[in-house]
Parts: sequence; C-alpha cells; structure tokens
Amino acid sequence: MIKKEILVIGGGPSAMVVAGGCRMFYPNKSVSIIKKDTDSMVPCGIPYVFGNLLASVEDDMIPCGDMAAKMGTELIYDKALKIDGEAKTLTCKSGEVYSYEKLIIATGSTPKVPKKIKNYDAKGVFQVPKSPDYIRKMQSALADVQEVIIVGTGFIGVEVADELQSAGKKVTLIGPRLLKSSFDEEVSVYMEKIIDKNGVKLLKGERVTEIVIKKGRAYGVKLKSDTVIKADAIILATGYAPNIDVAQESGIHIGEFGAIRVDEYMRTNITDIFAIGDCAEKRDFITRRVSPVMLASTATAEARVAAANLFSINLVKSFKGTIGIFSTVMNDQAFGSAGVTESQAKKEGIEYISTVVKVAGKHPAVLPNTQEQVIKLIATKKGGVVIGAQLVGGLDAGEMINMLGAIIESRYTIFDLIGLQVATHPLLTSAPTTYPVMQAAQMLVAQFFKE
Amino acid sequence: MIKKEILVIGGGPSAMVVAGGCRMFYPNKSVSIIKKDTDSMVPCGIPYVFGNLLASVEDDMIPCGDMAAKMGTELIYDKALKIDGEAKTLTCKSGEVYSYEKLIIATGSTPKVPKKIKNYDAKGVFQVPKSPDYIRKMQSALADVQEVIIVGTGFIGVEVADELQSAGKKVTLIGPRLLKSSFDEEVSVYMEKIIDKNGVKLLKGERVTEIVIKKGRAYGVKLKSDTVIKADAIILATGYAPNIDVAQESGIHIGEFGAIRVDEYMRTNITDIFAIGDCAEKRDFITRRVSPVMLASTATAEARVAAANLFSINLVKSFKGTIGIFSTVMNDQAFGSAGVTESQAKKEGIEYISTVVKVAGKHPAVLPNTQEQVIKLIATKKGGVVIGAQLVGGLDAGEMINMLGAIIESRYTIFDLIGLQVATHPLLTSAPTTYPVMQAAQMLVAQFFKE
Repeated sequence: MIKKEILVIGGGPSAMVVAGGCRMFYPNKSVSIIKKDTDSMVPCGIPYVFGNLLASVEDDMIPCGDMAAKMGTELIYDKALKIDGEAKTLTCKSGEVYSYEKLIIATGSTPKVPKKIKNYDAKGVFQVPKSPDYIRKMQSALADVQEVIIVGTGFIGVEVADELQSAGKKVTLIGPRLLKSSFDEEVSVYMEKIIDKNGVKLLKGERVTEIVIKKGRAYGVKLKSDTVIKADAIILATGYAPNIDVAQESGIHIGEFGAIRVDEYMRTNITDIFAIGDCAEKRDFITRRVSPVMLASTATAEARVAAANLFSINLVKSFKGTIGIFSTVMNDQAFGSAGVTESQAKKEGIEYISTVVKVAGKHPAVLPNTQEQVIKLIATKKGGVVIGAQLVGGLDAGEMINMLGAIIESRYTIFDLIGLQVATHPLLTSAPTTYPVMQAAQMLVAQFFKE
Repeated sequence: MIKKEILVIGGGPSAMVVAGGCRMFYPNKSVSIIKKDTDSMVPCGIPYVFGNLLASVEDDMIPCGDMAAKMGTELIYDKALKIDGEAKTLTCKSGEVYSYEKLIIATGSTPKVPKKIKNYDAKGVFQVPKSPDYIRKMQSALADVQEVIIVGTGFIGVEVADELQSAGKKVTLIGPRLLKSSFDEEVSVYMEKIIDKNGVKLLKGERVTEIVIKKGRAYGVKLKSDTVIKADAIILATGYAPNIDVAQESGIHIGEFGAIRVDEYMRTNITDIFAIGDCAEKRDFITRRVSPVMLASTATAEARVAAANLFSINLVKSFKGTIGIFSTVMNDQAFGSAGVTESQAKKEGIEYISTVVKVAGKHPAVLPNTQEQVIKLIATKKGGVVIGAQLVGGLDAGEMINMLGAIIESRYTIFDLIGLQVATHPLLTSAPTTYPVMQAAQMLVAQFFKE
C-alpha cells in the first residue's frame, strides 16, 4: 500500500482544477491524480477537429502532464477499481493500493447507450466520446465519406454537423429542434436559419427508431414515420451518462439520473470522499430539481468549491446549483443561454414575465462589423428576480452571457438591473441608451407599473 | 404659459433615456424635451470621426428626432434659462414659459476651462465639446495639419490621439500616464506599447504650462521643464465640467465638483426637480466620496432610476453610486476597468489584496485569433469583497468587464466568485479550467488559507 494525501480520480477539466486548487489552498499537502488514459481531450473542442479549425486531435489536448508538473502534482496512469471507505484505500487495475486522506472522484461521462435506437452499435455508427483514440479513428473513417446523418440536436450534434458540412460533407441533422434545452423556439430559429444557409439539412421534430443495415454495416436510419434516409456514416449525439462504476462498486449513493449524490460541498455519503464534474449529481439553481446538465464550466466551479472545503467547511453553502450556462457559435454569430428557458419555466410551474429586445451591437450602428443583438430576459412574476436569459449576437455575446450568469447567480431583480452600470464603447458594445440587458429589464419593470 | 407634465432639459443620452423610461412607466403622462441644439452627437463616438472609422460628424448623431417620435415625446428646440421651483415653471430663451409636474435636468457637460495653461484659448487650440458645429469646424481645421499635440491622457485624449495618427498625423500626447484614473501602471503599460507601436509619441509624466504663440496663433506648447514643442494644432483634452447655469440660477444646490446635488433617487433639494447625467453629482460606489466620473453608462443608469422613482419611491435606494466602469479599444485589443484601482485603494486607505492572471482568450490556444487575456482583481483584505477589476484582452473583453461590473455592484466576495459558473466555448472564451476571473478569485482566496 502506498500512502497518499489528496487523491483525485480522473483527468478531465474538473480533475485538473481540483488538483490545482488543492495545491494552492494546501501547499503542504501532496496531490496525486489517478488517470486512466495518458491523454485527455478538451471536451468542448472535440467538434472542431471535424472541420477546418483544429488540424488534428493533437491540437485539442489538455496538457495534463505539463499542468501537473506546473502545479506540483503527481500523475499516476492507472485505472481506479474499488474504494474502501472504511480503510480509506483505493485499489487500481495494476493491483496497486493507495491510501488517502481525502479522495475526489472526477470520472466524467461517456456517451449514453441509445437503447431506444435499434442496431445502435452497427458498423458505421459513431458516438462522440472524449477518447483521443476513438476520435482519431472516427476522423479517418469519416475522411472518405460523403453523406453523414447526425442524430441529436443538442450542442454536440449541432456543432459536429456544422463542422462536418464545412469540411465538405453532405450532412443531415435529426432531432426535436436546435438546442432545445437551452433555447426557446424563437431563438432556435436564428440557428436554424444559419444551419440551413450553410447547407445542413435539418429534419426538425423527427425521431430515429432504427439504424438500417445493409451488407453488415449501417446504410441509413429509419424515422418514426418509417421513412428511410441513406447515409455513409451515422453519428449518435444523444447525450452522455455519468461514469459511476467505481463509485457504485464502493457503496457510494447514486441519484436520479445515475450520478453520484453530493451535497453543497461536493461531499458524497462516505466520509472524506468527494465527487465533482459530470459524474456528480447537480441540482438546478432555480428549480432545485436534479438536473442532467453536464458542462465543463459547472464542473470546474464544483472543483474549486470542493478544493476550498476539502478539510473543513470554509465557504458556507458553496455550490448553489447549476445555472446551465452555455454558449456556442455559428458563422461568427454567438448564442448564449443561462438559467431557465420560457418552456422550462412553464413546465416547472414558475409564474414568469419575459421580453425580447433587439438592438445594434455597436454604436453608432454605421460602424463596420455591427451585428444585431437579441436578448430574451425572463423574471419571476412576483418579485422580479431574473431567472433566465438567452442571447444572440456577435462573438462578444459569449462574454455577455457570463454577465447575465452572474446576474442570475446573485439573484438580481429587474428593479436592481435597471440601475446596472455597464461600460459602453462604440467599437465594443451597443449604445448606453439601448444596452439590451437594462432595456429588457426596464420593459419588465414597466409591467409592474401597469398593475 | 404652456402646461406640460414631465419636462426634461437636455438632449444627450440621459435625457433620451429618462424620456423613454417615463413614457414606458407612465403612458398617460406626456413628456416634453427642451433641447438647445437641433443635433446631438453620440459622445463616446466623437474620437472616431477623426480617424477612418466614421466618415463624418453626421455618422455620429443621436437620432433624437426619430427617438422622440418613436417614444411619443415632444421635442422643443429652445434654451432653458430659469426655473421657478415655487411656481413650478421654466422660462426659456424664446420667452416662453412652461409649467411642469416633474422637471428633470440633464444638461450634460462641456470641456473644462484649463485655466492653469497660459493662452489656452489661442487660435489653433481646440477642445473636444459634444457640439456638432464645433467638431465639424475642428475636423476641417485639422485636415491640412501635420503635427498635432494632445494634452491629456484620459480616454478622450488617448482615443483622439490614436485616431489622428491613424489618419496620418504626427501626434504627440502629453499627460501623466495613459488612463491613470481607470488603470494601474502595469495595465497602462500595455496601452503605451500599442500607442508607441502605432507611432504616437507619448511624453509621459509631463505637464503643459503654456501655449506658445507666434504670429497670433498657437505655435507649440511649453512644458514644466521649459522645453517648447512645436505643433500645427493643439487639442486640450483636460476633462469636462458639469453644465449647471440653469440650476445655479434657480437656487438648486451645487456640490463639491460643481455638479448638482442629488440623492439616491436623483432628486435635487427642490421638490419635483431631478437631475441626472454629467450635470448631476455622483458618489463612488465603494469609497462613497463624491466622484468626478462622467460616463454615459452611469448617466443612463441614473436616467432609468429617476424615471422609475419620479412620482413616488418605487425602487428603494435605487442608485448606488458610480462604479466607474469603462472600456476602450486600441488595435483590436480591448481594455476595461470597473471599481477602484490599486492606486485609488491605497489613496483611500482601503486594506486590499490583489492579483494578476494571464491566460489565452480562446481554447485550445492554437485556435486562430487567440489573444492573451490579462485580469487584475482587487478585493478587500478583511471580507474578500470584490472592489476592482482591470482587464486587457480581445474585443470580447468589452463585455467581460460588464460581468465584473455586475459582480462589483452585487457585492460579490471572492469566496462566492470561485463558484461562479460561466459559459465557455473554444471559439468564444478561455478554457473552463483557466477562466481568469475565477482563477484570480481562487488565488486571492488562497491568501486567506495562509493565515
């Protein structure tokens, strides 16, 4: 048995951040990372290795080795198998046993097995795991292919579709509607126009029931309506499931969506064992329901919180739940979302008010590269607390949504928001007179004046 | 006497916003704007009419007429002279007298008379007022000129200098250091490198005592050291003073920096008279001292607050003081600042901690157009409340500083900030593992762990 102090299982963003945080907060403690593979990909960069932006899988690597060296943490390449919470030890595939003072599980997620689709594992069918080896093989398999079907209109499906078409493929995208869980219909429409202009064929509202097989490999997909669509390759982008094998084996409690149960300090039910990132259960910041959201930004926030509270509670009620904050980009147009959408608010029985504002993203609008900004703002009907925002704009909308995220996390009301001060500059933002966040807030406040 | 309901004096950003807010909140009340000139310029766009970005003064106009028509407010072209607070009337230059229910003074600011500089009003010396006529004349006077000296290293001085050099002038910029009131020395240095690369000569730390005259017009400037520097034209960008003639004539209290005294609801000492924008006194959000900051974003926030509280207090303690939030751009690099700088904190006796973080603004960093992001974060030493942020980055830093502004306004602590969730995307932001705001917060939290 080898004695360790802080032990981290995993090698993705949250593992690296918790290791760095621990080194920063507890410089006298050693940190060891048990990592299954030698390489880890930057998860949100994966779609871009299929287009023209990243030349290869190697361009999309988390430099774990360099990071570990810089932070002064140890990297052990081994597969974690079982934890003994009483003895405080971890047994690995190599046979090695490690003791720990504090253990952090950050095992991430892998693509869900799409059991509802018949023949989902046929030859010529791909998923999008975060494995460099798989993605390399997938890249070369797709190199000679003309027609690709992508099943799933979440962010991986949409981004991979857009990249593959930019690389010259004929792409058909099948799913309910674009980024349904983050955007309301009226915002999805903006993306649909772009995707359509780029040449991706969208079968909106369709569902795939079966992979059709010919000569031992995928030939196309069968829709709910029994129509068959032909393709040379099929990519299933139907979501991810938490990696919980080690945790489950070890008696750690698992929650509703199959993720590890944790509290606000990222502690599991077993003393001195924490879980963070995609493998850990999340609650929604607003609805307080268990949320299936998996985002590197949520994962790394959890990592920082776990590090700060590892040896004692230092930051009271630290992790407040996921606000599901998200951004993407299509043709130099950025889309952002934070908090609940209008459809989620309806579904959850939240009484809400909402408004949409459109402005020019620079001022005066005659300036070159001025793009339209569209914001949708959602607040509670009674107290006017901001609970959701959706944004379409130029590339700067990617940071604008982060302002709205901070507004939601700090429980800003629209009444405070009309007095918010923002820096405005002709070449950087919309005009101070029209800045859409405060304009939207003002329109919502006006609804209270009517009563 | 003509009976009016809501009367606004002014025609700049805050006047237009308060008029729009009143129409939105009180649709049954009429709003009339008394405006001196027929045209108003977009204030922060003025520097850009001297370079290649805006073709003419006409390209930088606030479309007051269109805006008024759209909002359903009346525009009266006249000069306000005197208010009778007892009779609730306003007398104008035309001789007309208007009664009001509520009066809002939004008379703005004009360049300060730089009395300390001898011969400041010589021929060939310019200031930068917000007057279209003046700017048009200045443009044509500068057209044939080769060498220009700009006195003042605040944002107008720096932006005008950069634009004039881009239009082919030989520019010398004289002042303490670039944007001293918004940035600490270590951030100013980034701007100085750019300005220098662009060919602007910066005389840092110098002071102009006199305009040297030859043949009845400005020939150059004399420095404190008695050195004389020659130029064909001289621009004095030495700050603005509130326009308070009408207010002062009418017995309204004036404060420390010569601005109209107001409370958190933007009310003056006279019942039913409000003041907003550059002509109204501001307090600093953090230091609570009277602040000379003049920003359209602060002005428009005040305008929204005044509108909401015009007939009764609706939003308790609405305007919380200026956070001095500010952004500018040089060579596609954006600079932002909010809250106090380190030098201000020192001067005000605030016990603070601070840190600087540098990261790649996209992820992975091999992506095209990846620019470095630098953030300086300042928090109180005792409670860790975020009180200042400075930012250098790509154009998206213009919106990133607004996230930091919201963080400062909502009195976020660094302990909350490490758990902040931000949307990250390869093409839009830095990596979730390195996002500089949380990384800086974490480094500051680590200082508390040491104690």
